[in-house]
Amino acid sequence: MTPFHYQNGKLYVENVSIEALGREEKTPFYVYSEQKLRSQMRTFTEAAQKYLSSFQICFALKSNANLAVIKVLTSMGAGADIVSGGELLLALRVGVPADKIVFSGVGKTREELTLAVEKEIGQINLESAEEAVMLEDIAKKAGKKVRVAVRVNPDVDAHTHQKITTGKKENKFGVAWREARSLYRNLAASENLIPVGIDVHVGSQLLETQPFDEAFKKTAAIIRTLKEDGIVLETIDIGGGLGVSYQETDKPCSPDDYMKVVAENLADFGCRIIFEPGRFLVAPAGVLVSRVVRTKHTETKDFLVLDAGMNDLIRPAIYDAYHAVKAVKEAEPSRLYDVVGPICESSDVFGKARKLPEMKAGDLVVLETAGAYGTSMGSNYNFRPLCAEFLVNGDHFAIVRKAQTFEEMLSLNVLAPWL
Amino acid sequence: MTPFHYQNGKLYVENVSIEALGREEKTPFYVYSEQKLRSQMRTFTEAAQKYLSSFQICFALKSNANLAVIKVLTSMGAGADIVSGGELLLALRVGVPADKIVFSGVGKTREELTLAVEKEIGQINLESAEEAVMLEDIAKKAGKKVRVAVRVNPDVDAHTHQKITTGKKENKFGVAWREARSLYRNLAASENLIPVGIDVHVGSQLLETQPFDEAFKKTAAIIRTLKEDGIVLETIDIGGGLGVSYQETDKPCSPDDYMKVVAENLADFGCRIIFEPGRFLVAPAGVLVSRVVRTKHTETKDFLVLDAGMNDLIRPAIYDAYHAVKAVKEAEPSRLYDVVGPICESSDVFGKARKLPEMKAGDLVVLETAGAYGTSMGSNYNFRPLCAEFLVNGDHFAIVRKAQTFEEMLSLNVLAPWL
Repeated sequence: MTPFHYQNGKLYVENVSIEALGREEKTPFYVYSEQKLRSQMRTFTEAAQKYLSSFQICFALKSNANLAVIKVLTSMGAGADIVSGGELLLALRVGVPADKIVFSGVGKTREELTLAVEKEIGQINLESAEEAVMLEDIAKKAGKKVRVAVRVNPDVDAHTHQKITTGKKENKFGVAWREARSLYRNLAASENLIPVGIDVHVGSQLLETQPFDEAFKKTAAIIRTLKEDGIVLETIDIGGGLGVSYQETDKPCSPDDYMKVVAENLADFGCRIIFEPGRFLVAPAGVLVSRVVRTKHTETKDFLVLDAGMNDLIRPAIYDAYHAVKAVKEAEPSRLYDVVGPICESSDVFGKARKLPEMKAGDLVVLETAGAYGTSMGSNYNFRPLCAEFLVNGDHFAIVRKAQTFEEMLSLNVLAPWL
Repeated sequence: MTPFHYQNGKLYVENVSIEALGREEKTPFYVYSEQKLRSQMRTFTEAAQKYLSSFQICFALKSNANLAVIKVLTSMGAGADIVSGGELLLALRVGVPADKIVFSGVGKTREELTLAVEKEIGQINLESAEEAVMLEDIAKKAGKKVRVAVRVNPDVDAHTHQKITTGKKENKFGVAWREARSLYRNLAASENLIPVGIDVHVGSQLLETQPFDEAFKKTAAIIRTLKEDGIVLETIDIGGGLGVSYQETDKPCSPDDYMKVVAENLADFGCRIIFEPGRFLVAPAGVLVSRVVRTKHTETKDFLVLDAGMNDLIRPAIYDAYHAVKAVKEAEPSRLYDVVGPICESSDVFGKARKLPEMKAGDLVVLETAGAYGTSMGSNYNFRPLCAEFLVNGDHFAIVRKAQTFEEMLSLNVLAPWL
C-alpha cells in the first residue's frame, strides 16, 4: 500500500483520511507521511550500503525545517547539512550529534562560523580563500582545530532549472579547481584548519546520472592531484541533487543508478562519502491540502480557485515547478481547470489545464510531492498566516506545526512612539 | 534635501546615519523614511486633486504590511486596499475607517467575506458570478446591504513583467465584459448586493500611460452601457499600477500624466475614483541595509557576498527585479561586483556587474527602492529570521518591527507525541 492512496473513494495518508484531517484543522495545511519519510531514507541508505563501505547521510535542512520531519530522519541515522546559524541551532535542538553536521554556504558570517567552531561540528565547507582566512582567525582565537573541506566548483551543466543549478563556474558557489589547489596547500600549512575533505555540488533535482558522472570524474582527478601534493582526504562531500518525480514525464535515475556512479568514480579512495539529500528524502512524503474556494467559469476556461496560495507553496511561481493536483474525493477526471491561488499576482497559479473530476466549493484537493521547499519557503505574503503541518504515522496523526494566528503575524510589530 | 543622501561621506536617511542604525541593530534590516512616505502620498494626492473632484486613495497593504508604514499613510487620509482577511484585520487594527476599505481578490473565502460584511467595509470587488452568489447568500443571512463592484478584465497588455500583469483575459482576475453586463443586471435585481462601482486593474509597475488609457477607455464604454441598462455607478476603482524608477533607464510617467489620463477618460461620470497605489507610495521610501560578509575574488569576477538574502528580498529572484546597490561609505565606484546573498540557490543574486567602490568585509550597503514587496514577501528560508524594520522621521528613528529570534521561528513547532 502506498502512503497516499484512495480507500473507499477517499484519499488517505497511510491510515488517516485527509477529509478527517480537514475537519480537525482549517485549510490549507501540509501532511507528511512518516512511513514515506522512512522508506525514502531507507531506500537511500540501502543503495549507499550496497556500493560503499563508509558514508554519512546529512539531511539538507533547507528543504524542510520542521522539527518532527528532521527528527524522523535523524533518528534513522541522518546528520544535518546546514547553511545558516539558524539551521545549526535547529540541528542541535533536534539532537543531531555535532560531528554529523556539515556547514555549507557562500555567506557564512563571522558569528555563524564562531558558533560552528564552538560547537565542534563535523565539517565546514569553505567556499572561498577569503572565508578560510576568516575561519582561521576564529579557530586560532578559540584555540580549536577545525575540520574543513573546500567546495570545488565542478563547472558542470546540471540540465536542471537555472535557479537551482549550482555547479557552473559563473555561479557564486565554490572555488575553481586552479584556486582550490593553492587553497589546499595553504590549509595544509595551517595550524588551526585541517583539510579533511572535498565538497562538490552539481545542482538540485537532477534526473540523469551524466552530470554527476562528469562532476565526480573531475572530483576524482582533483583528489589524485591533492594526493601528489601530500594531502590525503578523509571525506568526499558530494552534496545532494538526486531528483524526484513531480510528474509522469519525470524519470529520475534511481538511488541505485546514482550510487553506482558514485562508487565507480569515488569508492577507491577509501574516503567517507557525505551525502546531502533534501528533496529526495522529503518531497514525495508531503502533500499540501487545500480547499476549493470556488470554481470560476469564463468564456475561455474554468478556474479552480484554492485557499492555498504562493505564500504556502512558492515553487510554481518561482521555478515554474509542476505539482500534480488530485481530488480528495475519488472520481473520474472529466474537466480541465486552471488551478489558482487567492494571491493577487498572475504567478499565483498552481497548474494550467489540469484534468480533474467536476469540483465544487468546499471540496478538498492535494498538491502532491510538496514535502520539500514548501513550508521552508513559506511567507506571510498578502498577510496570510503560515499554515499548519501534520505528521501521520499509521493510524496516528499529530499537528507538528500549528497554524499561525493573526496576533502571531503581528507580534514583531511595534509602532514608532511618535505615531 | 532628499531623504536618502550622503552627508560627510556617509549615507543618511533624513537626519539619521545608516551606520548609526547599524550599531543599534544587527543587519540586514529595512529602513523607511517617513518624510518620503509622506511626500509620495502628498504627490499622489495633489495630482488627484488637480484633476478630480472626488476620489479616495486606498493603500495596497500587500505591498507593505508594516503597522507603522500603514499608519503614516492612513493618517494622511489613505484607506486600505485589502486582499485577505488578515489584511482586513490589519486595516481595522491601524484604525482605517471601514468605509475606506476595499476588498479585492479572486479567492475570497466565505469566512473572509462574512467578516467583511459584518464589518461593513466600503466596497467588495467581485471577481466572478460565483463569488456574487456566495456573497449574496452571506449578506442575506446577515440581513445586510453590501456595496459591491464588479472587477472587469480589460484585456489590455500592461507591458510589464508577466508575473505582475493582471488585466489580460487569460489571467484569473475579473470577469470579461460580456459576462459583466449580465452580472450587473443580476446585481441590480439583488436585494442584498448594491452594485455601486466598477473595478479595473491593468497590472503593476507600469511605466507608460498608454495601457491605462486603453483600459480606461474600455471602462468608460462599459459605464455608458451600464447607464443604458439603468445602472448608475458611484465609484470607479482603477486599482494601482503606477510605476516607480528602480534604475536610471526606468522613466515612469508622473502622477500628473497619469491623473490626466484618468480624468480625460473617467472624470465626466461624476463618480468617486478609487485608487489603490502600493508600490508608488512605499517603494522609494525604503531601503534594505546589509553588511558585506566578505568579498570573493574568482578568475572571472568578484563577488560581494551580503548578509541579506532572497528570504529578505525575493524580488530579484522571482521577477528578475533590479535594485540599485549603494555603499554606505561614500567613495568613487571603481570595481565591478556580482552582489549575492548567502542563500544556497543560484537565484539568490541581487545584481550582476554592479559598479561600486572597493568594498571589504563589515562594510554596509543599501539595496534601494525596497519599500514595496520587500518585507511583505519575506520568509524564513534557510531558517533565517525575519529582519528588523526601522522608521526614520527627521532626527528620530524607531524599530517598527523587531528582528525575529530563533525561538520565535520555532514557536509554532510541536513534536508528535510518539517521536
